[in-house]
Amino acid sequence: MGEFLTEPKQTPTLGRRGPAGPPGRSRPVPRRATPSDGHEATAILDRARDVVDPELRRAVDSLPGAMRRIARYHFGWEHADGTPANGNAGKAIRPALVLTAVRALGGREAVAVGAAAAVELVHNFTLLHDDVMDRDATRRHRPTVWTVFGDADAILAGDALQALALRMLAEDRHPAAAAAAARLAACVVELCAGQHADTAMERSDPDEVTLDDVLDMAEAKTGALLGCACAVGALYAGADDEDVEALDAFGREAGLAFQLIDDVIGIWGDPGRTGKPAGADLMARKKSLPVVAALASGTPAAADLAELYRGPYREGELERTVLAVEQAGGRDWAQQQAADRMGRAMHELSRAIPDPEAAGGLLALAEFVTRRST
Amino acid sequence: MGEFLTEPKQTPTLGRRGPAGPPGRSRPVPRRATPSDGHEATAILDRARDVVDPELRRAVDSLPGAMRRIARYHFGWEHADGTPANGNAGKAIRPALVLTAVRALGGREAVAVGAAAAVELVHNFTLLHDDVMDRDATRRHRPTVWTVFGDADAILAGDALQALALRMLAEDRHPAAAAAAARLAACVVELCAGQHADTAMERSDPDEVTLDDVLDMAEAKTGALLGCACAVGALYAGADDEDVEALDAFGREAGLAFQLIDDVIGIWGDPGRTGKPAGADLMARKKSLPVVAALASGTPAAADLAELYRGPYREGELERTVLAVEQAGGRDWAQQQAADRMGRAMHELSRAIPDPEAAGGLLALAEFVTRRST
Repeated sequence: MGEFLTEPKQTPTLGRRGPAGPPGRSRPVPRRATPSDGHEATAILDRARDVVDPELRRAVDSLPGAMRRIARYHFGWEHADGTPANGNAGKAIRPALVLTAVRALGGREAVAVGAAAAVELVHNFTLLHDDVMDRDATRRHRPTVWTVFGDADAILAGDALQALALRMLAEDRHPAAAAAAARLAACVVELCAGQHADTAMERSDPDEVTLDDVLDMAEAKTGALLGCACAVGALYAGADDEDVEALDAFGREAGLAFQLIDDVIGIWGDPGRTGKPAGADLMARKKSLPVVAALASGTPAAADLAELYRGPYREGELERTVLAVEQAGGRDWAQQQAADRMGRAMHELSRAIPDPEAAGGLLALAEFVTRRST
Repeated sequence: MGEFLTEPKQTPTLGRRGPAGPPGRSRPVPRRATPSDGHEATAILDRARDVVDPELRRAVDSLPGAMRRIARYHFGWEHADGTPANGNAGKAIRPALVLTAVRALGGREAVAVGAAAAVELVHNFTLLHDDVMDRDATRRHRPTVWTVFGDADAILAGDALQALALRMLAEDRHPAAAAAAARLAACVVELCAGQHADTAMERSDPDEVTLDDVLDMAEAKTGALLGCACAVGALYAGADDEDVEALDAFGREAGLAFQLIDDVIGIWGDPGRTGKPAGADLMARKKSLPVVAALASGTPAAADLAELYRGPYREGELERTVLAVEQAGGRDWAQQQAADRMGRAMHELSRAIPDPEAAGGLLALAEFVTRRST
């Protein structure tokens, strides 16, 4: 796999995602037409947060007492004692994708605000449960719900948020609501399968995990919901099946790029920006994408890394582990692979939305999530 | 509260449930017109299981690998190693209520089979999660999912079953499907609130828990889904809002009766029939309905019980605890209260379905669940 790490075109591909060839067969890739400096994405995200927040708060406030309190804490709107807080409710990437996709396909954003909130509720339900399973103690720079309220309440609040999301869509009179609900529910099943694969992989021997496994897992765990957000937006714009699927594929590929970059940040990034300590993934022996690529590289550094990963983390090993992943090409591979996935995302986007002007917002969002590494 | 224990008409009532007066003001209560010997209910349950099982299996088999395997184990269709099993998938009371309510209101059962399966999926999702939270090791005479597959997989399989249920309704073309989905999702939120109240109560001092608290909790945790099952059936029969609500209230009251009897069985019942060891609820210091009624009785036995409940269970205390609940009137109260709730259930049923012949099936099911004590 030495060559493969410097030659992303030869990387194994996700079975479900079709041919791995470079994008842009027929139409120019919009990226080149509209380079974005990140301000556009930030503006879109801020606007999405402003538009969706009232709907989200209304939905959460409809929950009965205890569930409401836990959810409000999770979203950063309240402290654990119930006093108001001005916390970080996340970057609203998924609602922004829903709303931007609706507009990009000629629909009216206003009709999809509830759907955008529903997608965000599903995202937050998975965070609540994942934190319980992964024993993650910090989320958005605050103690996670299970550490404050206990496992049972974190599980229940997550269950309630899933139900709330699907209830919102069931009560939505828009003609696309039922299809959106079916898609979102199917996505939840995929998210569960992805999280299952993730936890199963963590228990496996380093040699047992293949790059295909970990790419499949990342697609299910991260790509699926970003794809679903875009597809839901397309549905609310009244797009045809082909465009809905292209938007889903766009979101999935961008999601994989996002996860690759997130994993890179998890090893080499700035904890002040990520909210988790640098190297935590390595200390926890997490089989993140760069690590699995490094393990599969057949290099001497890979053997060193496998040896390190077979035992628990020991004080002072971090630097050596980081170096092994880097020397085995894990970092380069992940960054190349992220760029490759972005290329595919652009290609899918241009199939559904050939006009670079109309596609600009979605493009800016996709570039924003991958630019987090710089 | 001494009198209250022998005089159920004066018991505190659930705020939401309206006046506590005896049922049957205007119309004859169908119970007297069609006494049921239990065979009818058994036949209805067996038929519901036969009709719904293929739909349920189809839905579960649509899950991705690991989620499917866990769910198939939970339903008793497979052993943990994946070999076929002929386990007990439960009594199908909720699907039977859906299908029987459709027929009772003049609808066609066939259109509601998917909805009946969806309700059963939600029930099983809550069992998976409740067993994790309550650390219950046995369910339907088999080791619970979390004991076999771990907490994470039990949480994920539950999440997937909730999503599957709501996906089935979102993909259902029946005109009532959206209303049914909204109702089922709202019910999930209520179930979560009920389970939260239950776990919170278990942590409380015996003196802090009121009978109203525990009745509210039981309505949310048990009554809500039985009510929802009946209401979903009514929706699929095209019933008007008033009848849908009456059916919901019927199911809730029958559900409370069921819970009261279940709690009685949990103390005095036959573990061969319940699948849990006799007295387990008392050893776990569970604040079940008879226990809370006993604690609130103001009798000397109540003081003895409160004293016992303040400490952890000690070897040999079981007999004394059982006796204290009984002497404080907990058993009599629960049985009287169950009868009272059944009376209210019949009254609600007769409002929506005055014809005793048409109401017979629902009546038989309600009587079946409360007859479990004999």
